[in-house]
Amino acid sequence: MMSDETSRFDILFEPVRIGPVIAPNRFYQVPHCNGMGHRHPLAHAKMREVKAEGGWGVVCTEEVEIHPSSEFSPYIEGRLWDDGDIPALACMTEAVKRHGALAGIELAHTGLSAANLWSREIPLSPSGGPVRDYYPISTRAMDKADIADLRRWHRAAALRAKKAGFDIVYVYAGHDLGLPMHFLSRSLNSRTDEYGGSLENRARLLKELIEDTKDAVGDTCAVAVRLSIDQLLGPEGITAEGEGREVIALLAELPDLWDVCLASWSNDSMTARFAEEGFQEPYAQVVKALTSKPVVGVGRFTSPDAMVSQVRRGVLDLIGAARPSIADPFLPAKIREGRFDAIRECIGCNICVSGDTTLVPIRCTQNPTMGEEWRRGWHPERIPALGRTERVLILGAGPAGLEAARALAQRGCEVVLADAAAEAGGRAAKEARLPGLSTWKRVADHRLQAILPDPKVSLYLESRMEAEDVAGFDCDAVVVATGSTWRRDGMGRAARRGISGLERFALFTPDDVMAGRPPEGPVLVYDDDHYYMAGVLAELLAGRGLAVTYATPASVVSAFTDYTLEQAKIQARLIRLGVQVRCGVALADGRLGCVHGGPAAAVEAPNLLLVTARDPDDALYRALIALPDGRRLERIGDALAPGTIAAAVYSGHRLAREWDMPAEERFSFKRERVSLEGW
Amino acid sequence: MMSDETSRFDILFEPVRIGPVIAPNRFYQVPHCNGMGHRHPLAHAKMREVKAEGGWGVVCTEEVEIHPSSEFSPYIEGRLWDDGDIPALACMTEAVKRHGALAGIELAHTGLSAANLWSREIPLSPSGGPVRDYYPISTRAMDKADIADLRRWHRAAALRAKKAGFDIVYVYAGHDLGLPMHFLSRSLNSRTDEYGGSLENRARLLKELIEDTKDAVGDTCAVAVRLSIDQLLGPEGITAEGEGREVIALLAELPDLWDVCLASWSNDSMTARFAEEGFQEPYAQVVKALTSKPVVGVGRFTSPDAMVSQVRRGVLDLIGAARPSIADPFLPAKIREGRFDAIRECIGCNICVSGDTTLVPIRCTQNPTMGEEWRRGWHPERIPALGRTERVLILGAGPAGLEAARALAQRGCEVVLADAAAEAGGRAAKEARLPGLSTWKRVADHRLQAILPDPKVSLYLESRMEAEDVAGFDCDAVVVATGSTWRRDGMGRAARRGISGLERFALFTPDDVMAGRPPEGPVLVYDDDHYYMAGVLAELLAGRGLAVTYATPASVVSAFTDYTLEQAKIQARLIRLGVQVRCGVALADGRLGCVHGGPAAAVEAPNLLLVTARDPDDALYRALIALPDGRRLERIGDALAPGTIAAAVYSGHRLAREWDMPAEERFSFKRERVSLEGW
Repeated sequence: MMSDETSRFDILFEPVRIGPVIAPNRFYQVPHCNGMGHRHPLAHAKMREVKAEGGWGVVCTEEVEIHPSSEFSPYIEGRLWDDGDIPALACMTEAVKRHGALAGIELAHTGLSAANLWSREIPLSPSGGPVRDYYPISTRAMDKADIADLRRWHRAAALRAKKAGFDIVYVYAGHDLGLPMHFLSRSLNSRTDEYGGSLENRARLLKELIEDTKDAVGDTCAVAVRLSIDQLLGPEGITAEGEGREVIALLAELPDLWDVCLASWSNDSMTARFAEEGFQEPYAQVVKALTSKPVVGVGRFTSPDAMVSQVRRGVLDLIGAARPSIADPFLPAKIREGRFDAIRECIGCNICVSGDTTLVPIRCTQNPTMGEEWRRGWHPERIPALGRTERVLILGAGPAGLEAARALAQRGCEVVLADAAAEAGGRAAKEARLPGLSTWKRVADHRLQAILPDPKVSLYLESRMEAEDVAGFDCDAVVVATGSTWRRDGMGRAARRGISGLERFALFTPDDVMAGRPPEGPVLVYDDDHYYMAGVLAELLAGRGLAVTYATPASVVSAFTDYTLEQAKIQARLIRLGVQVRCGVALADGRLGCVHGGPAAAVEAPNLLLVTARDPDDALYRALIALPDGRRLERIGDALAPGTIAAAVYSGHRLAREWDMPAEERFSFKRERVSLEGW
Repeated sequence: MMSDETSRFDILFEPVRIGPVIAPNRFYQVPHCNGMGHRHPLAHAKMREVKAEGGWGVVCTEEVEIHPSSEFSPYIEGRLWDDGDIPALACMTEAVKRHGALAGIELAHTGLSAANLWSREIPLSPSGGPVRDYYPISTRAMDKADIADLRRWHRAAALRAKKAGFDIVYVYAGHDLGLPMHFLSRSLNSRTDEYGGSLENRARLLKELIEDTKDAVGDTCAVAVRLSIDQLLGPEGITAEGEGREVIALLAELPDLWDVCLASWSNDSMTARFAEEGFQEPYAQVVKALTSKPVVGVGRFTSPDAMVSQVRRGVLDLIGAARPSIADPFLPAKIREGRFDAIRECIGCNICVSGDTTLVPIRCTQNPTMGEEWRRGWHPERIPALGRTERVLILGAGPAGLEAARALAQRGCEVVLADAAAEAGGRAAKEARLPGLSTWKRVADHRLQAILPDPKVSLYLESRMEAEDVAGFDCDAVVVATGSTWRRDGMGRAARRGISGLERFALFTPDDVMAGRPPEGPVLVYDDDHYYMAGVLAELLAGRGLAVTYATPASVVSAFTDYTLEQAKIQARLIRLGVQVRCGVALADGRLGCVHGGPAAAVEAPNLLLVTARDPDDALYRALIALPDGRRLERIGDALAPGTIAAAVYSGHRLAREWDMPAEERFSFKRERVSLEGW
C-alpha cells in the first residue's frame, strides 16, 4: 500500500449520487454482452459478482429482453419477459449487492434489430422494412396501439427489474440497436405522426420511456439512458455536433444518468487496432456540457491516471468500463491498494466480444478466469496453494509458458522458465511489433511483472534446451510451451493436403516477416487462416510501399474478425492502402481460381506470403516423451494446438489450476441444466 | 379407408427386425437436427412424440454429443456427457415408445467439425490441422491414448443411451462430421500407424466403435451405422464406386443396420431446386447389394408409390425420412388409412434446416405446427373446435389465406375465401413457375385439397373485393391476406431510403417477371433481399440467353440460403450459366460501388431488376380499419409483414389457433427454464 499514490486516486473512490441511489465509487461496469445471459444465469451471476468483489461500484447486466416481440436469438442476452424470469436475475443482484455495489439492468426492446427467430413474433419498427441481418423477415410499422403496448411492456419490465433487486434501470437507445434509437434515426423513421418528422417528434418515444420508467420505479431506482450520440456515418447519420447533441439537450435533466456510447457496436467497442484509450472523450464532453446529471462513458480505460484525468477535467463522473473490467475484475481494488503493477490491462483484442458473437460465454486474452468463475470455480486473483513444493521446468516463455509459470508459482511451485529468444513473450512479443498490435505486449508484461519479483521463479532467456539438456535438469515436471510455426506448404482449410505449384514463388510466412525477412517486391498475401495475421501483414507491406494483393478463399477479408467487430474496418483499411483484394479464390498451381467454379487467373507477383495454418512446435515434446525418466511431462499453448493468444493463456492457466486434479475429472465442469418440470 | 389402396401399401407396414429389436413398420425417421436439442428438451420430446403418434416406426434424435471434447456450440444438438443428461433424453424415449415406436439415438463425436467453443477443449482429429469453419482453433492429432479414450467415451455414452431407454444406438460416420469419417478420409488422415494408410486401417476406428457399441449394449439395442458413402467430390473424396463401396464391403455384416447418406450435409439434404425425390437411390443400391442387414436411406420421399417401389425393388428395407416427417408427422398413418390427399408433402425448401442453422428450433413451410407441439400445444392434425359458428371472409387465397381458411374451417367456421387472381395460391402459385420452385405449388395444393371438398368453405377466384364490397358483405369477421409487392425504389437493407438514380434504367421487379413482363436485354439483377428470389431470376433470365449481371451488397450470392444449405450451389450455378457475379457492391446513381470503399463502376446494362424488399399490400386493410362496422378485422401473412412462405402459413394458422384467445395471452408460450439449483 503506497499511501502517496493512493491519495492521488482518492477521487476515483468518491461516492456518486445517481438519482435515488448512491454508487460507492466511480468505477462503473457498463452493460456488456457476455454470451451467458438467460442460458447460463448462474455463470452470469458469478461473473458479475466477481467484479463487484473487485471493487466496481456499479455492475450492470447486458441487454435484457423485455418482451417476446424483441427476442434476440441467436444471441444470448438477458431475458425478463415475465415474473418467471425474475429469480435468475435475482441471483445476480443478490451476488453483486453482497459486495456493496449497485446492480444495473439494461432493459432492451431492439425493434428491427431483433429478428424474433425463436418467438416468431413480427418485429416492430418505426416505419417497417426488413430486419437487420439477412433473415427474410420484415418488420411491421408500429401504430399507436403498438407504441402504447411497448410503453406498457417497458414499464412492466421495469417493475420486474425492481422486484429482482436492481438499483439502476436503463432505457436503452444505444448502438443502433435500441428501438428508441430507431425512432431517432431519420433513415429508419419516416413517420408522419407525432413520432416522426422533427427531432422532438423522433425523440418522443425515448422521452416517454424515460418518464414511464421514472414513474414506475424512480422512487427507489435510478433511471439511466444509454444513448449513442454519434454513428460515425457523418451527415448520413446522427452526429455529436448535430442531432446527437440536440437530443441530449432536449432530455438533459430527465434521466438520472447518461451513459454515452457510439453506434454501431463496432464503433463503440473499437479494438486497439482502430482506437486508442480514451478515444470517446470528445463525445462524452458533448454530453457533460449539456447536463447536470452524472455522466458515464467508456474508452477502454486501464490507466489510473487517465481515469483521474477524466474526472478532474470534468469529462466523466463515472469511469465506465466493459473490456477493462473483463480483463481485470479487480482493477478498482488494485488502484485502491496501490497495486498498479498487478493490473491486467485489456489489450483491446475483442476476443471477449467473440464469445457473445459466436454465441458462447465470454472469454478474455488477459484474464483466463473470465467465464470460468462459476463453472470451474476459478477466481481471477486466488488459486488454492498446492500444499507441496514441486520444481517445474517450463520450456518457452510465450503466453502459455508465462501464464503457467505465474500461476504455478502462485500455487507454491518453484518454476524455472527457459526460452530460446532474447526476449520473453513469444508470439505476443513478436506480434506486438506489427501495425496496431502493440498492446499484445501487455500479455507478456503482466506476467513478467508478476514473476520477475518472485523468488520462486527463475527466467532464463537465450536458453534453448534440447532433450538431453532437459534430461539432465533437476526438476519434478517438464512443461513444453514451445509455440508454433507457420506452415510453408499452404495446408489450411481450403487445401488440407497443401497447395500445389508453390515452387514457382519466393515463399514467405509470417514467421519470416516477423524475423525481419519480409518480401521486398510485389507480393501475394494468401489468407487461409482467416484471423488477423494476413490482414495485418498486408497492411504492413502495403504501408512499406509494396504492391500487395490479398487473396482468400473466404468471402471477406479476415473472416473471423467479424466476430471481433473488426472485419469491415480491416477490409476498408486494406483497400484504402491500395491493397488489391481478391475474395472467394483458392490458390493452386500458381493460379487463383474462383471457389465457386468461375475462372482462374495466373498470379503475377513473384513473392507469396502464405498465411494458412500453424504447426505445433512439438519436436522437443516428442523427444521428451521418448525419455522414460518418470517425470511429469505436459504440453500447453500453441505447442499443444495452435490457437489464439487467449487460448494459449487459458491453456497455461488451466494446467496450473488442474495440476493436482485427477485426469478423469478435468473434462467436467458445472453446467446449468434445463428444468424438466412440467413434462 | 380404401381397402384396395391400402393393400398395395401393406408392405410398408410390415415389421422389420433390426438386430435385437423389431421396428413395427418401415417408416423410419432418421436422425435430424432441429435446433431444440439439449436446450429445449421438452419441446424436442414432444416433437418426436408426435411423429411416433403419426405412425413412424422408428424415431431418432439428432446428433448427440457424447463428450465435452466434441461440443457443438453454437449449434444446439443433443447432449449425453454424463448421467445427469439422461433424464432429458428419457423424456423423449418414454414419449416415443408410448406409441409403439422404437427410439434411436445418434451418438456423435465430430472431431475437427466441433470447435468446442463452449467447453474450450482442444478438438481432436486424425492428423491435426485447423477446425472446420473459420474459428482460429486447431485440432490435435490423436495419439493412441486419445483413441482409447474416445472408445471409452463412446462406450460409456452407449450405456447411458441404453439407460435412457433407446432401442437403436448409432455410430455416426456421416456428413463429413463424424470423427470415424474423418479417419476414413485420405485428405484428413495422414497417419502412418495402424489407423492410417490403407482403407482397412482408416476404417479401423469405425470398426472398433461398432464392436465396442455392440459389446456394450448390443444385447438389447440395435447398433446402426450412419455412413456417407459419397462426398460428391469425385476422385478427390470418398465415392460410392470407390472407397465408399469398399468400406461397406469391409464392415457389411458388423452393424445391425446401415443408414446410408451423402456428405456433406448440403448434398444429403439437397433442396428441391437441386435434387428430385429419390435422388439417393443409386447410393442405397450400392449398400444394399453388399449387406444382408437392413438398409435405411432417404430421398425426400412423399409419394407412397415411390416408397413401395423402393422396398419392392430391393433398394431400401426402411423408408428413411427427415424432411417428409417434418412436413407431415402423420404421413404413415395417412397412408395406412388411405388418406393420400391429406398428406402434406415436403416442398424441399429447407426452411426446417434454417431453424437449426440459425440456432433456433425447427419450423416448416408446410407444417406450421412443427416446433410448436410443446410450447404452444399445437397438434398437426387436430385443432379444438371453436364451439360456435362464425362466418369469416378471407381476402386473398395465398399461403396465409389458404391456411387460415383451412384451419378456421377445421375449427368450425364458415369461410368465404376470395382472391383477385384466376388461380389460388398467391405467391406460392406464381413462384412455382420459376426454375426449381415447382414444389412451392404443394403449399396451395395441400390446402385446396382440404378446403375444396369442405362445404363450410367457399372459394371465389377472380373476385377482387374493394372496401365497399367488403362493407356490404355478410360476415362476422374479415381477414386480410392480400400479400405483398416488391418495391420499385430500391429500398432494402443497404439503402433504407431507397436508391438514387434509378430513372436511368428500365426498371423491373420480380412481380413484373412473374407477370410475364421480363426484361429482354442485358440486365442487372440487384439483390438486396438475400434470399432465393434474385438468384432464381438471374438463373431464369440467363437461361433465356440474356446477358445477366447479378450484384449484391452481401459478400455472397443469395446470402440467406447458406442457412438452407444452398448458397454455394446457387453461386456455382449462376457462374456456370454465365452470369457475371459482383458481390460486396451497392448500387447508387447508376454505379456499383464497393461497400468497403473500393472503386465504383458505371452499370452498363439498360435494364435493372430490383430485388430488394417487399411492401405489404395493406391498402384494403387500411381502408377497412376506417370502416367502423364493429366486425372483427385481422391481417395475416405478407400483408402483415412480408416474409417467407413458411411465415405466411404460420401466420394464417396462428390466427385460426388463437381466434378465441384473449389478446394479452397471445404472446406467451411455454418455455423451458434453466434450473437455479446449486446456486
